[in-house]
Amino acid sequence: MEVIEDIIKILKTKQTFVLTTHIHADGDALGSLLALGLALLNNGKDVVMIHSEPVPENYRFLPGAEQVIMVQDLKEKEGFEVGIALDCTDLSRVGDAEQLLQKADCIINIDHHISNEYFGQINMVETEAAATGEMVCGLLVKGGFTITPDIATNLYTAIITDTGSFRHQNTTANCFRTAAYLLECGAAHSFIQHNLYEQRSLQNLRFMVNVLQTLSINENGQIAWMTITKDISTEADNNDSLIDYAKSLKGVEVGILFKELDSGEIKVSFRSKSYVDVNQLAAHFGGGGHERAAGCSIKGDLKEVKQLVIRKTEEYLAKRRAAE
Amino acid sequence: MEVIEDIIKILKTKQTFVLTTHIHADGDALGSLLALGLALLNNGKDVVMIHSEPVPENYRFLPGAEQVIMVQDLKEKEGFEVGIALDCTDLSRVGDAEQLLQKADCIINIDHHISNEYFGQINMVETEAAATGEMVCGLLVKGGFTITPDIATNLYTAIITDTGSFRHQNTTANCFRTAAYLLECGAAHSFIQHNLYEQRSLQNLRFMVNVLQTLSINENGQIAWMTITKDISTEADNNDSLIDYAKSLKGVEVGILFKELDSGEIKVSFRSKSYVDVNQLAAHFGGGGHERAAGCSIKGDLKEVKQLVIRKTEEYLAKRRAAE
Repeated sequence: MEVIEDIIKILKTKQTFVLTTHIHADGDALGSLLALGLALLNNGKDVVMIHSEPVPENYRFLPGAEQVIMVQDLKEKEGFEVGIALDCTDLSRVGDAEQLLQKADCIINIDHHISNEYFGQINMVETEAAATGEMVCGLLVKGGFTITPDIATNLYTAIITDTGSFRHQNTTANCFRTAAYLLECGAAHSFIQHNLYEQRSLQNLRFMVNVLQTLSINENGQIAWMTITKDISTEADNNDSLIDYAKSLKGVEVGILFKELDSGEIKVSFRSKSYVDVNQLAAHFGGGGHERAAGCSIKGDLKEVKQLVIRKTEEYLAKRRAAE
Repeated sequence: MEVIEDIIKILKTKQTFVLTTHIHADGDALGSLLALGLALLNNGKDVVMIHSEPVPENYRFLPGAEQVIMVQDLKEKEGFEVGIALDCTDLSRVGDAEQLLQKADCIINIDHHISNEYFGQINMVETEAAATGEMVCGLLVKGGFTITPDIATNLYTAIITDTGSFRHQNTTANCFRTAAYLLECGAAHSFIQHNLYEQRSLQNLRFMVNVLQTLSINENGQIAWMTITKDISTEADNNDSLIDYAKSLKGVEVGILFKELDSGEIKVSFRSKSYVDVNQLAAHFGGGGHERAAGCSIKGDLKEVKQLVIRKTEEYLAKRRAAE
C-alpha cells in the first residue's frame, strides 16, 4: 500500500502533470489516461494528456478524448513536475512522448502487465489486475478523488475492453465490484455498449464474412485456421477478435489466422483454448506472446507458410498426446 | 422483504419439493432451477427437479443437470408440499409439468419478468432483477444456505446468459456484485465460458456465414435485414444472436431477421438500437414483445412479406423523423 500512498501524496501536492499511454492505444490505455487526467483537472491541477498518435476513431466517444494532444502539437515541452505512464510495460511504449516524459522531475508507472520493466521512480504494478483502469479506480477511491460520471465511463470502458466484457480468464471478483461501483458513480452503460459494439461498418462486416469463409479444419479437428489474403484485406479489417471464431469451434484446441502483408511476410496469430502453449509455437518461428495468445511473422509464400505452420502445430499436438 | 422471509420459512420447514422452469429453457431458467434444487438437497430435503423437455445439450454442463427428470419419467406424482416455478411468467410456461405443480399444497413463483401473472400462493417477482438467478442468489444468502461451487456455477451462468455477458441494458450494479460474490464462492468461470462460447459446431458457423451473406440495408442505412431461407436452414441454426450483427452496424436503428418456416409462414424478428419501439411494429403484424426486441409470424410469400415489413418499418421511421 506504500506505493499507492506515495502516488496519492504526489497527486495531491504537485501542480503540473503530463500523462500518457502506449501506442496503438486500446480502451484500457485511453480510459485509464482520461480517467486520471480528468480527476486531476477536477482538482485544479495543470494537466496535459499527450499521445504519440491521434485517438483512434472508435475511442473518440470517451469523455475528455478531445483534450488528448498529439506530442508534436504541444507548445510547452518542459517543466512538468510529474510524468505518468499508464498501461505501459516500458517507456519506449509511449512512442514520441518518451522524451517529454523523461524531462519530468519524477516518472510514475501505473500498469498491470507481467512484463512491466519498472521504469519509473515510482512503480505501481499490479499483475493480478485485469485492467490498468481497475487500478486507477482503486487509486482514486483511496485518494478520495470524486469519481464523476465522465471518469466512471472511462474506467468502465477500460475494464470492459481488457476483460472482453468479463469473458476472459483475467476476470476477477474485484473487476465485478469495481464495475458495480462505477455504474453507481454514473458510468454510461448503454452509451458505452453502443459505441463499443454497435458502430461496425458494413465493409468490416463483409470483410468478416470473407475471412470466415476461408475457415479450414485439420483432419482430427484440433486445428482451425483462416486466411486474410491481400485481395480480401481492407482498411476496415479491425480483425482482433476474428481468430476467436476459429477457437470457438467444438474440439478445436488451436486457432490460427494467417495474414498476407504487403512486405511479403505472412503474419501468423495463434490462440489456444486450454492446454497448448502457443507462445512456444510462435517462438519456434521467431515470434512470441503468451500461453494462450501469440504471434509471429514469416517470410515466404502463403501456401508454404500455411503448410509449415500447420504441420508444426500438428507435431506439437501429437507430442502432447504421446506425453499423456 | 416479507415475501422472501415467507419463502425462506417454507424452504426451511417443509420437506418435499418439486421444482421446475419454463419450456425452451435457457441458462437463467436451468441455472436457477439447479441452484435452488441443489441448495435444498444439500439441506436434506426431498427434491424433485422436473422439466417438460430434456435439458438442452448446450446446458448439460451445468452441475446437477443430470438430476433433472422429464415429467413422464417421474413415478410418484403426488404428495409434494411445495411446488416452485422458476423464471416463468405464467403456469402454462412450465409445459407438461403444470398439472404436477398444481397438485402441490403451495406454489411459489420466483421470476423477474414484467409480464408475470402472479400465479403462485407466494409470488417473489422482482422486475428490476436482470436474471431469476440473481434473485435466487439473494434468497439463498438471506436464508443462510451455503453457496457451494456447484450452486455458484449455476447462478453465475444464469446471470451471464440473461445479461448477454453484462452487455445488455438490464445489467445493474447488483448483477456485478452478485457475480463477484459467486466467483468468490467458487463459480467455475473458465469452465462456464468454455461451455457457453467455445462449443460451436462447424455446421453452425457455416450457417452463420450463409445468413450474414444475405445482409441487406435500405437506402438511408437505418434498416438492415437478413434472411434464413429454407435451403440454408439447418438443425444447428441456434440463431438467437444472429440478428445482433444487423443491429451492430453503424447508422442502423432496426435489425430484422426473416425466417422461412415449414408451415408456410415467415417468422420475423425485430431489434432496435435506441428509439424505435419494435413491439408496436410487431403488434401491427399480430406479434409482440418488448420495445427493443419483438417478433411476429406472417403468412405469405417470402419476397412479399419482406417488402411489406421493410416498407412498414420505413414508414414508422419516417413518422418518427417527421415528429421530431
